[in-house]
Amino acid sequence: MTLNDIIHLLEFDAQSEHNCNITGMNTLKEASEGEISFLSDSKYEKDLEETLASAVILPASKVHLLPKNVLALCSDEPYLMVARLSKVFAKPIASSDMAPIIGSGSVIYPTAHIENGARIGSNCTIMSGVYIGTDTVIGDKVILYPNVSVYRDCIIGNNVMIHSGSVVGSDGFGYAHTKMGEHIKLYQNGNVIVENDVEIGANTTIDCAVFGSTIIKHGSKIDNLIQIGHNCVVGEHCIMVSQSGLAGSTTLGRNVVMGGQSATAGHLTIAPFTTLAARSGVTKSIKTGGVYSGFPLMEHKLWLKLQAKLAKMLQA
Amino acid sequence: MTLNDIIHLLEFDAQSEHNCNITGMNTLKEASEGEISFLSDSKYEKDLEETLASAVILPASKVHLLPKNVLALCSDEPYLMVARLSKVFAKPIASSDMAPIIGSGSVIYPTAHIENGARIGSNCTIMSGVYIGTDTVIGDKVILYPNVSVYRDCIIGNNVMIHSGSVVGSDGFGYAHTKMGEHIKLYQNGNVIVENDVEIGANTTIDCAVFGSTIIKHGSKIDNLIQIGHNCVVGEHCIMVSQSGLAGSTTLGRNVVMGGQSATAGHLTIAPFTTLAARSGVTKSIKTGGVYSGFPLMEHKLWLKLQAKLAKMLQA
Amino acid sequence: MTLNDIIHLLEFDAQSEHNCNITGMNTLKEASEGEISFLSDSKYEKDLEETLASAVILPASKVHLLPKNVLALCSDEPYLMVARLSKVFAKPIASSDMAPIIGSGSVIYPTAHIENGARIGSNCTIMSGVYIGTDTVIGDKVILYPNVSVYRDCIIGNNVMIHSGSVVGSDGFGYAHTKMGEHIKLYQNGNVIVENDVEIGANTTIDCAVFGSTIIKHGSKIDNLIQIGHNCVVGEHCIMVSQSGLAGSTTLGRNVVMGGQSATAGHLTIAPFTTLAARSGVTKSIKTGGVYSGFPLMEHKLWLKLQAKLAKMLQA
Repeated sequence: MTLNDIIHLLEFDAQSEHNCNITGMNTLKEASEGEISFLSDSKYEKDLEETLASAVILPASKVHLLPKNVLALCSDEPYLMVARLSKVFAKPIASSDMAPIIGSGSVIYPTAHIENGARIGSNCTIMSGVYIGTDTVIGDKVILYPNVSVYRDCIIGNNVMIHSGSVVGSDGFGYAHTKMGEHIKLYQNGNVIVENDVEIGANTTIDCAVFGSTIIKHGSKIDNLIQIGHNCVVGEHCIMVSQSGLAGSTTLGRNVVMGGQSATAGHLTIAPFTTLAARSGVTKSIKTGGVYSGFPLMEHKLWLKLQAKLAKMLQA
Repeated sequence: MTLNDIIHLLEFDAQSEHNCNITGMNTLKEASEGEISFLSDSKYEKDLEETLASAVILPASKVHLLPKNVLALCSDEPYLMVARLSKVFAKPIASSDMAPIIGSGSVIYPTAHIENGARIGSNCTIMSGVYIGTDTVIGDKVILYPNVSVYRDCIIGNNVMIHSGSVVGSDGFGYAHTKMGEHIKLYQNGNVIVENDVEIGANTTIDCAVFGSTIIKHGSKIDNLIQIGHNCVVGEHCIMVSQSGLAGSTTLGRNVVMGGQSATAGHLTIAPFTTLAARSGVTKSIKTGGVYSGFPLMEHKLWLKLQAKLAKMLQA
Repeated sequence: MTLNDIIHLLEFDAQSEHNCNITGMNTLKEASEGEISFLSDSKYEKDLEETLASAVILPASKVHLLPKNVLALCSDEPYLMVARLSKVFAKPIASSDMAPIIGSGSVIYPTAHIENGARIGSNCTIMSGVYIGTDTVIGDKVILYPNVSVYRDCIIGNNVMIHSGSVVGSDGFGYAHTKMGEHIKLYQNGNVIVENDVEIGANTTIDCAVFGSTIIKHGSKIDNLIQIGHNCVVGEHCIMVSQSGLAGSTTLGRNVVMGGQSATAGHLTIAPFTTLAARSGVTKSIKTGGVYSGFPLMEHKLWLKLQAKLAKMLQA
């Protein structure tokens, strides 16, 4: 699809002289030639001047910040235009003609479904009802228990164990909103990377990234019924206990422990070696490791002090 | 089954002169001739006088409120009798001889299981391990990702996308309790209706109605690991974020937003355009849209004020 | 594997004169001859003197508490040694040559996968995509809805109903931690026992025990999206409402009710006839039945009083 095709499709008031072929969308920072990017949140303004994108969707008031060789596509609702454009580049569910490759010693149960283009390493056990999507790559000695789903384009390392019913690579929860209150899907074209020695419990969900990757790093252990949103990064050797959750784009440093039913908001950074007590709710980034509790979050010893004060107030 | 058969089975002290055929159970309001209804909660007393049911299970003290042509079936424990009766009318898992109908352009993966009586529209993708129950109707351009289960009698609209592992139409959580502390299942004979343009995330559960329908209205977006109880109604263009939940019979107005891990009690009505912050817990109906937080719930600005006061108390 | 083989493998500084065959691991209390046990938590010290284990992994400082005929295997990090040893005794995913036995009148959908060694009673319905592991025993009149997974060695009673996507017997979440911050899996060799007349909702997860059994007793009703950790015991006729959770080794007495999104910490005992309100969080054992709320937990009437005081503080 050429740039002018896209301009026509989305009804922008612009025209490209070079009219290059457009292969996809990406963030301002990650985009390369032949990709379209966008500015929908002013905190990324600083990325405009160095973007390599061929065109950028942005408000008219920000056009002067763009390099001269980048085409401006002006919109009052850039995020909505991005959502509409994302459908154009949405990947089909299955899109490879190459029969899956299965490594030596791997056992594939007969009701597992492996799409074309997938590759499975050696000595894996892929149990009944498992789904492995197009172009997904599975390492060695991986056990996928019954009815696990791994969507397309994901990368699973060695010695990974995923328990029954867990879902890796489902669409992140992203929508642009119209003035009429409708929600327009932002197609999620990224993937999930699960590094070596990770164990994932049962019925946990890990969404793919909108662009780029959601990453579960080496040695982390994820319990049952956990939600990990799109574009999160779970550091090395983290522990997430059952029913905890990460909203999108949050990064855990290494050896973070999240107690049962704890959660974080999106777009946060949690310092390495932080422990979040059961039920704690994090709404701001944590810069220093330590033990934290409560919602709003506070140092655990302050939380204990608060509870003591409340107990006293109750007796008064 | 005739009315006198039922009287005999449940050992009521009554007899019907007309002894009509009984086809099912329903609420006082929705029941029509040939159905049995019940009064187990006094707030529905007002519905007695206009019920069209052929017979009503109710406490002896309320019999005088019934129209003369409706047979009274007296019980001190009407809800328990309803539970016992519900088993009689429980639908079998599969009960059709009609081969499923598949619309043109639809792709059905070989390990999907589609029961007799189901109908699937055109240009759908029904992936591996999906289950579609008897008499369920799926619209056009629907994508059911791997291992989704849709129980019998459900209706799924057009352009609906349901991610891996989600369950639509599982039994609502309803029991009558005996004096010995046992729980007697109330068989759930209703269904789930998912309207057009709804997206449902991974490993979410939406229970069928006990009678009638659980409804997800047009354009709503439901994230991962969400619970929607029996007989809930989710209005148009609502957003429910991961790990949130609705207890039974709660209605969300249009464009309600529920943050992550928020929840409501049952039998509530939430005003249109209400935003419930992450973690908020709703125990009373909300009449006016706005932003609410906390548990117990309060206006978000009050919640912020409360947290400021608690922080001050902590420093004292 | 002989005791000296194990000593060699884990590089203990010890040697057994008897060098008996070792068949597995167990707790100090439950171990019998031919098993290895361990002391990693000083509260179990009292069990040392009567253990029947053939050898015990423990700190050097506790060796004098062992009976003379029990071999001491000294370690500064006994739990880590236990984790390493657990891998030796981990059971394979499938390990029986005996074709599964299916009782009369049972219907098995074609895409269900039943491992060798499993036994299914009469008049069961085992729906599409269900997985039943090696040596698991299913009673009579059991309904397993689509895509349920029951891991190996479990026991399911009569008249049990398990809704779509639920997982019974997945590995408990147990790890020993190295000084470098890595987590070493404690292989979970126990099982789950689900007694008669239990109903389990959709996408719920019940982990197997590390040793022994996780037990759901007679007549209990478990809703959707619930987590039950390893070695929990849910008493007779309990009710667990959606999105609630039990951390490992917690015991509920009979007729305990857990409201939506409530949870308990691990290793607790909850008195019979206790009601935990929605959202309550239990961190200490409960000795007397009653109604409790909040986090930290308190009597429900105190919680109401606390909320009234906070509301007053807010107005001040």
